Amino acid sequence: MSSQKVSVNTLPFSQVDTSGVLLIPGGQGTRRLAEDKAFIEQIETLSKQASYVLTVCTGSALLAKTGLLHGMKATSNKRAFDWACSNGQDVQWLKKARWTNDGKYYTSSGVSAGMDMILGFICDIHGEQTALSLSGQIEYIWNRDKENDPFAISK
Amino acid sequence: MSSQKVSVNTLPFSQVDTSGVLLIPGGQGTRRLAEDKAFIEQIETLSKQASYVLTVCTGSALLAKTGLLHGMKATSNKRAFDWACSNGQDVQWLKKARWTNDGKYYTSSGVSAGMDMILGFICDIHGEQTALSLSGQIEYIWNRDKENDPFAISK
Repeated sequence: MSSQKVSVNTLPFSQVDTSGVLLIPGGQGTRRLAEDKAFIEQIETLSKQASYVLTVCTGSALLAKTGLLHGMKATSNKRAFDWACSNGQDVQWLKKARWTNDGKYYTSSGVSAGMDMILGFICDIHGEQTALSLSGQIEYIWNRDKENDPFAISK
Repeated sequence: MSSQKVSVNTLPFSQVDTSGVLLIPGGQGTRRLAEDKAFIEQIETLSKQASYVLTVCTGSALLAKTGLLHGMKATSNKRAFDWACSNGQDVQWLKKARWTNDGKYYTSSGVSAGMDMILGFICDIHGEQTALSLSGQIEYIWNRDKENDPFAISK
């Protein structure tokens, strides 16, 4: 059940297809999960097996907690930035980034930035025309520049 | 079950709270539902009872089919525009509109435009500061001008 009272159907980790792309969402639930050692270990196992790992919002905090982002570029929700950073002090946390890409890892800022990241990911994997075609189909005004971040923080 | 194989939990019409805001989503399912007389009658009943009725994408076709948009401004998904128009020939269908507002009715273009409409609705009801605060919290780059429609069609 989400905090908006919408029920979300889930599968146990054992039934998850471990190939392909892993998307780690964020949200308030990440605060508790970041302290759940068994959960973080499962995220680590899935992340190692996945071809690509994408995070939205504070999902990057969970990924950082696994240690897999060591020395890598990443970003997170700008309103929970200090907390996100505390989960991986050796990560290159970017305060001005709509999204980041480093190796097989993509991380995005606050929730809406996830849309720009997903299209950026599709652009990287399937090419610009595919990304533009998809954004047109859903009438999405794509912010194509991952460094164009109107919600950047300076502190 | 959505066309993306995500299960969506629903309530029968009899259990829906008929006060407040009614949001009518779009999608491929609207093609069949627009021909379902009993369904359209239920949409009409709910729409009459609601304080506000908002549609996203081809949801406006279902609302148009009720006759409640007679003579009013409306828009829809630009890739299904002719079909949407066929469901209400006496509606003022706008080919260039991110979203429209006429009386208690709000309609938006293709799915992503729904976000701009919702914030426009919140702006109208609760004021600009509330809308800007919410869009900032979700790091959403709000297209505040409902006439700014990069996906407008001319034909």
